[in-house]
Amino acid sequence: MAEMTSVAEEKCTIEVCLSPKLFSEILTSENYVVVLTDILRATTSIVTAFDNGVKSIIPVADLDEAKKWKARGYKVASEQDGKKLDFADFGNSAFSFTPEAIGGETIVYCTTNGTRALEMAKSAEIIAIGAFINLTAMANWLITQQKNVVIVCSGWKNKFCLEDTLYAGALASLLLKSPLFITCDDATHAAILLWDQAKDNMKDYLPKIAHTHRLKKLGLDDVIPYSFRMDIVDIVPVFNGKEIVKEFVF
Amino acid sequence: MAEMTSVAEEKCTIEVCLSPKLFSEILTSENYVVVLTDILRATTSIVTAFDNGVKSIIPVADLDEAKKWKARGYKVASEQDGKKLDFADFGNSAFSFTPEAIGGETIVYCTTNGTRALEMAKSAEIIAIGAFINLTAMANWLITQQKNVVIVCSGWKNKFCLEDTLYAGALASLLLKSPLFITCDDATHAAILLWDQAKDNMKDYLPKIAHTHRLKKLGLDDVIPYSFRMDIVDIVPVFNGKEIVKEFVF
Repeated sequence: MAEMTSVAEEKCTIEVCLSPKLFSEILTSENYVVVLTDILRATTSIVTAFDNGVKSIIPVADLDEAKKWKARGYKVASEQDGKKLDFADFGNSAFSFTPEAIGGETIVYCTTNGTRALEMAKSAEIIAIGAFINLTAMANWLITQQKNVVIVCSGWKNKFCLEDTLYAGALASLLLKSPLFITCDDATHAAILLWDQAKDNMKDYLPKIAHTHRLKKLGLDDVIPYSFRMDIVDIVPVFNGKEIVKEFVF
Repeated sequence: MAEMTSVAEEKCTIEVCLSPKLFSEILTSENYVVVLTDILRATTSIVTAFDNGVKSIIPVADLDEAKKWKARGYKVASEQDGKKLDFADFGNSAFSFTPEAIGGETIVYCTTNGTRALEMAKSAEIIAIGAFINLTAMANWLITQQKNVVIVCSGWKNKFCLEDTLYAGALASLLLKSPLFITCDDATHAAILLWDQAKDNMKDYLPKIAHTHRLKKLGLDDVIPYSFRMDIVDIVPVFNGKEIVKEFVF
């Protein structure tokens, strides 16, 4: 009996935060890992960069800061309305980050949306960078961490967005296959229910995702099919408070 | 062609706000009606009170304010942890509001959760009070209003909750049957997708709703089946900035 109680006490919880603005409302108060996601496009791009050999990534929220890093000699990814800015070395797309362009480098990634979520979540001990492309690697790594998990959806300008919620549902589903995890969080249940509907039918789902239409208008929709591919990267990048580094390779 | 353009221009949008905290992020900037919902239990109770003949309801957020109204001679609904408070005339349950108790009266309803959402949404021109029990009446009334619609889920302590989101999905689904309405809002799509999964299978869904467990612990779960009954009330209550009154009867 004592053993059973002990096992029950060791359960880790899963919560989903559907917008960075709701981060202050989460129930988990300590000993947790944040998984930050921004499927279209920041976290998909960042995971890709690590897959292609980047050494580390410094995330910044505004152009002035990005320009300062550029002046110090760093390569900078920054774009406006889908176009690489003149001073920048790359745009923000995953496809910019070829091994030739970023292998072995520390680069600066300028993104308002993803960085806002990073700011909100910075009280967390560990912030891991999640995307569909490293889904199972993330789940396996989280199981080794033995901590509560809070999945933070970057959303779009603080609004709820479907693609990040679907990722949260996919990750939560995988975690709940492990006896380590439980959830009693409505947002986690909703994310899982949405993912269960979507997973075998993404083509019908994509038109419901407002951001796919925005990207199409900007001519940036080439990255959409890639952003929903699963498990092509075995790396979990983590943010250490200053930069994003490679935490773990399976 | 001119006629087609004109029809297109007259479309009204639907947005769903999944927590009062996200209200400031909604896209609709003018000419909109807010539908406020707090299925378990404030808005279900308020709609029931109108069905049973209440004249008007003054919503207040804290006990001190409720006590002031009581001292002025008003009947007050107020409870803590599911128990009617000594100074109050009723608890907050829909079942408290019998015709004998509230017929023809102006009563005061003290609820932190529902009133918080009312505060957030007060910039709206009209705030209507929605629950499953007046679902179709609300949809019909909104069609007569010819305005954009923002459905605000009260949630639980500013967190996302499933029951309010399911209501939002049910209402949005009804509205989209009218050619008047369109949506390009991810939260509305998500709410509809969740409702589509849940509507024929509420018994399996209820255990996923964390608040049903909280109510059960407090002995307040008697109201749950009633809160998910549809279309038993043909009244749309609206908040006029001071009190909630009966707007429309079909």
